[in-house]
Amino acid sequence: MRESILPLDGISAIILDMDGVLYTGNRPIYGAPDAVKRFRENGKKLIFSTNNSTSTRAGYARKLTQMGIPARESEILTSGYATVVYLRKRCPNARIYVMGEEGLKSELKLAGLKIVSEGEAEKATHVVAGFDRKINYRKISGGLHALLAGAEFIATNADSTYPTEAGLFPGAGTMIGALAGCSGRGPSLVVGKPSTHMIKIALEMLGARPRETVIIGDRIDTDVRAGKMAGIRTVLVLSGVCTENDVRKVRNTKMAPDFVFKSIADVVN
Amino acid sequence: MRESILPLDGISAIILDMDGVLYTGNRPIYGAPDAVKRFRENGKKLIFSTNNSTSTRAGYARKLTQMGIPARESEILTSGYATVVYLRKRCPNARIYVMGEEGLKSELKLAGLKIVSEGEAEKATHVVAGFDRKINYRKISGGLHALLAGAEFIATNADSTYPTEAGLFPGAGTMIGALAGCSGRGPSLVVGKPSTHMIKIALEMLGARPRETVIIGDRIDTDVRAGKMAGIRTVLVLSGVCTENDVRKVRNTKMAPDFVFKSIADVVN
Repeated sequence: MRESILPLDGISAIILDMDGVLYTGNRPIYGAPDAVKRFRENGKKLIFSTNNSTSTRAGYARKLTQMGIPARESEILTSGYATVVYLRKRCPNARIYVMGEEGLKSELKLAGLKIVSEGEAEKATHVVAGFDRKINYRKISGGLHALLAGAEFIATNADSTYPTEAGLFPGAGTMIGALAGCSGRGPSLVVGKPSTHMIKIALEMLGARPRETVIIGDRIDTDVRAGKMAGIRTVLVLSGVCTENDVRKVRNTKMAPDFVFKSIADVVN
Repeated sequence: MRESILPLDGISAIILDMDGVLYTGNRPIYGAPDAVKRFRENGKKLIFSTNNSTSTRAGYARKLTQMGIPARESEILTSGYATVVYLRKRCPNARIYVMGEEGLKSELKLAGLKIVSEGEAEKATHVVAGFDRKINYRKISGGLHALLAGAEFIATNADSTYPTEAGLFPGAGTMIGALAGCSGRGPSLVVGKPSTHMIKIALEMLGARPRETVIIGDRIDTDVRAGKMAGIRTVLVLSGVCTENDVRKVRNTKMAPDFVFKSIADVVN
């Protein structure tokens, strides 16, 4: 912990993880709307980020706004949108087989990227796998056929589990595991945190340099890790997945967050 | 290849892999009914074996009989039944969460083993995963909850793909991969070939010693490998998955089959 520098000293841009920082499921976390308002009043540029790829950016902007946290679509960064940015830049003519939910497909289509169906999976240049609560054998078969025909395997994110109010549920790691289990190949690229792709894209969207940027997240293994690897300041809040005990485990390691707060309300106070 | 010993010299018991040896999908392979008849006329004890766990032993006996290969239920060994034998012996009071098809559940129930549903998955002592064309998020969630609560992870088999007349489709490795991808744990035991469990159970069912037993299969990576590791004679037929090129690749290695034939018809001629 760097006691000498306050979390937001010299900071012009903030990457805010959403789930576990601003809300739990559909419930805003106490003080989150006020904290975001304060960031804006102080002129901070904001990105609201999530490894979840099941909804579009417009969907997240709506969700936040309805919770009393007004947000614009252009401020939202999902792992699905980050995948879109990556593909649009590197392979604008990609033919993509998607194993993911409608939100991910919509995001890819909105960017003008071509999606191929199960029946023509062999023609895909890329398989994009993300969190998919409607996973089934037919979808997996399409993915297998695309991979066997030589498509590149990209995952929006690799979270093993997905925390809900009813406990842990299978995350995108499940869909990756299913495809890897039949094809014998893992993804050549995982776009979401803890990969630094998400942070790099956030910095581009913010027009900010690493040293003037902070990430506020609730997970050491994704948010803090990605922040550390991208060379930005890291703030961990204990309102989501991680506990004080988790913080103790990484104390004096490279993964120790720069600052730890109970919740986002404490970051601004 | 041991040219000096004919494939069935000194052999009293034969383990016959089914798919790719006796039939392809629902079509018997030319000469298979006659070959099995000849084995029986020569007093050979037979086991019909498969890594597939989706049907019961009774179901396979019916399928073979309808193809002109009369077989008794007691001669059938599926990876599902082998799992039953393993569990009944080691953990007769097991509470099992099944991620597999109805045939696997039926086989477990027939043996008097207790099956727990998704809603009570946390109470499971074991998760048994097998090939499941009806894989879905709810089933995977149950498996995750059982594994997080400490259940032992057993797989009927780990075949990555499943050959059909329409090409390769995802095999049981898919279901294992999905559970491993969310739980972070792989199976502590894989019962089916190439593990030697199946062969050991076959030898018990046959009342035969390894040196008087042969396995006839169509896959080097499962049938031949399991046979070699269990110390029995191995015959590869080229009527299924493996080609002459695959045989060349393992020539002069430990995995070289003792004998290679075009099909089961040639084994008896």
